[in-house]
Amino acid sequence: MQSSSTLQPLTRVRLSVDCMGGDHGPSVTLPACRQFLDTHPQAELRLVGLPAALAPAAQWPRCTLVEASEVVAMDDPVEVALRRKRDSSMRVAISQLKAAADGHIAADACVSAGNTGALMAVSRYVLKTFDGIDRPAIAALLPNARGGFTKVLDLGANVDCTAEHLLQFAVLGSALVSALDGVEEPAVGLLNIGEEQIKGNEVIKRAGELLRAAHAAGRLNFHGNVEGNDIFKGTTELVVCDGFVGNVLLKTSEGLASMMGQFIRQEFERNALTRLAALVALPVLRQFKSRVDHRRYSGGALLGLRGLVFKAHGASDAYAFERAMARAYDAARNRLLDRVHDRVRDTLAAAPATSAAVDAPPQAA
Amino acid sequence: MQSSSTLQPLTRVRLSVDCMGGDHGPSVTLPACRQFLDTHPQAELRLVGLPAALAPAAQWPRCTLVEASEVVAMDDPVEVALRRKRDSSMRVAISQLKAAADGHIAADACVSAGNTGALMAVSRYVLKTFDGIDRPAIAALLPNARGGFTKVLDLGANVDCTAEHLLQFAVLGSALVSALDGVEEPAVGLLNIGEEQIKGNEVIKRAGELLRAAHAAGRLNFHGNVEGNDIFKGTTELVVCDGFVGNVLLKTSEGLASMMGQFIRQEFERNALTRLAALVALPVLRQFKSRVDHRRYSGGALLGLRGLVFKAHGASDAYAFERAMARAYDAARNRLLDRVHDRVRDTLAAAPATSAAVDAPPQAA
Repeated sequence: MQSSSTLQPLTRVRLSVDCMGGDHGPSVTLPACRQFLDTHPQAELRLVGLPAALAPAAQWPRCTLVEASEVVAMDDPVEVALRRKRDSSMRVAISQLKAAADGHIAADACVSAGNTGALMAVSRYVLKTFDGIDRPAIAALLPNARGGFTKVLDLGANVDCTAEHLLQFAVLGSALVSALDGVEEPAVGLLNIGEEQIKGNEVIKRAGELLRAAHAAGRLNFHGNVEGNDIFKGTTELVVCDGFVGNVLLKTSEGLASMMGQFIRQEFERNALTRLAALVALPVLRQFKSRVDHRRYSGGALLGLRGLVFKAHGASDAYAFERAMARAYDAARNRLLDRVHDRVRDTLAAAPATSAAVDAPPQAA
Repeated sequence: MQSSSTLQPLTRVRLSVDCMGGDHGPSVTLPACRQFLDTHPQAELRLVGLPAALAPAAQWPRCTLVEASEVVAMDDPVEVALRRKRDSSMRVAISQLKAAADGHIAADACVSAGNTGALMAVSRYVLKTFDGIDRPAIAALLPNARGGFTKVLDLGANVDCTAEHLLQFAVLGSALVSALDGVEEPAVGLLNIGEEQIKGNEVIKRAGELLRAAHAAGRLNFHGNVEGNDIFKGTTELVVCDGFVGNVLLKTSEGLASMMGQFIRQEFERNALTRLAALVALPVLRQFKSRVDHRRYSGGALLGLRGLVFKAHGASDAYAFERAMARAYDAARNRLLDRVHDRVRDTLAAAPATSAAVDAPPQAA
């Protein structure tokens, strides 16, 4: 395989779409697909769902309808999605990423707004992880003050992480940044409670050692520890943390942004004068709102699997779902899967040796 | 000791102030003290610092000057503050809370903007923790959509927490809410990544068990699991989490709020038209800014010690420092220390038994 930096973009990108997933199902996913087709003239879609639900798309260009007989509900337990609904739209959509008997795959990436636990479990079961990756992780984009997006993972797939997991996240996330932003060696920050190496709990300190070793070996661009505010400053392109912390910080951010929006509305609605001011300020406030609109960066990428799965927010509207599709398209076009494969092979294949050098006692000759 | 709910407020409240602490020292703390004296006619202050620095306050009413010969720098290691600078303004200010040979204390609460690690270590060394409390915790107030403040702890003092620590935080925090807000049985939320009992890592699940047991015994008002966004919704008056997660969520929130403020400014400064809109919207924007002004709730309370220590933000200006003093005053006036003592005695004295009931194998009769 050639080096990631010389990988040529795909000329033909095929997405499989779980049209039944999310809080709103086809009433959101189909308009999103329609919009996506208009803005992506080179894309091809495999629309997966119940035949009746897909009927409106029967004549759409560059679309193939793929039937499924079941739907994973948003509150279905993982076991139900995994064992009982074997012909769900979610599973069939994911299966498009798996090589068929002829060795070919039907789609380059899959998008679903279905329930996260089920999507993670079914993806893992159907696709498996790369060698060297214990569990897939969820990465998302958070806007930063530099005008870009900081990639953060893991956001909830792994609540108990080892230092090795955090190293894996750094490798997976670096591949994501390179595919989405074209930055080949993105700076990686380790989320901690201070910049000094001595800060943090034991897992974090050990993860710092692994990341420094990978950096020294030229496998990663490790910046060092970062703190919570660095995510929104954009200090590093990538921030890694365990899934518990990542989930808390994501939801805390959503809650704070929503409260601040509410405060702004309340202040402008206070009386006749402030409502007048709101009229004048409206275009500016709209512009501000669109900059912090979470729909622009909702959802995330499931990384570490032998196939590209993108998760849109369960509550996505058509705009948010289309944005998730666009991100999946960009990632597939820029060969995220090959990039992940290369980096996992180059970095994590070297990891056991690194780890041994740090930890293991000298062995008898 | 009487029950917390019948505790009478102190009629005379004495604060000791570390006038040398913080990024700006006396140039900030003295104007803050002056302002505080004007708005708190019943308060008495013990101003601690280098004699020359305190000179301007020599004739102030209700003030006693207390000399110290050293200053803990913001970047002094904990060891230096603890072992080498034994006559620092920080240590002398904290020592005012300790009973003298005659059994009396010189101050009811202490306020410092000095470095957190040093303040924590010196406070712990000088004051000791209550029986049943392993380590002090830092609590802070975050604004919520209900117009109040959610109290959150721990915010960084304890990076590796056990389930028992989280129970201790719930007890300490409940006392804080009752003293500051007059809510005798505040709802306690356990920060987690989902509302269901089965969510979270092992420590969190076990903490949930301990909290449910304390709730069942009538010792605490445990609401259940909460998520990051619940802090800003104000779902519960109190949220407990380990110090790593708490520190990350605090700094993440600061970073996001600051980025959103920057985005608003940028949008209003975009061109002549938007600058005109800004003029009209200015009073409203100012009102909004004051609602999210972190100076109003900067700093935090060190809880679990046998004395009330309040930490102002190192970068505090006079307004922020005065707010921290006002909070320390309210807490002391409403007898936070007695409340903590009562709750620790009532709840944590019962904890070993509770813990045994959950965990220990049946014993031979």
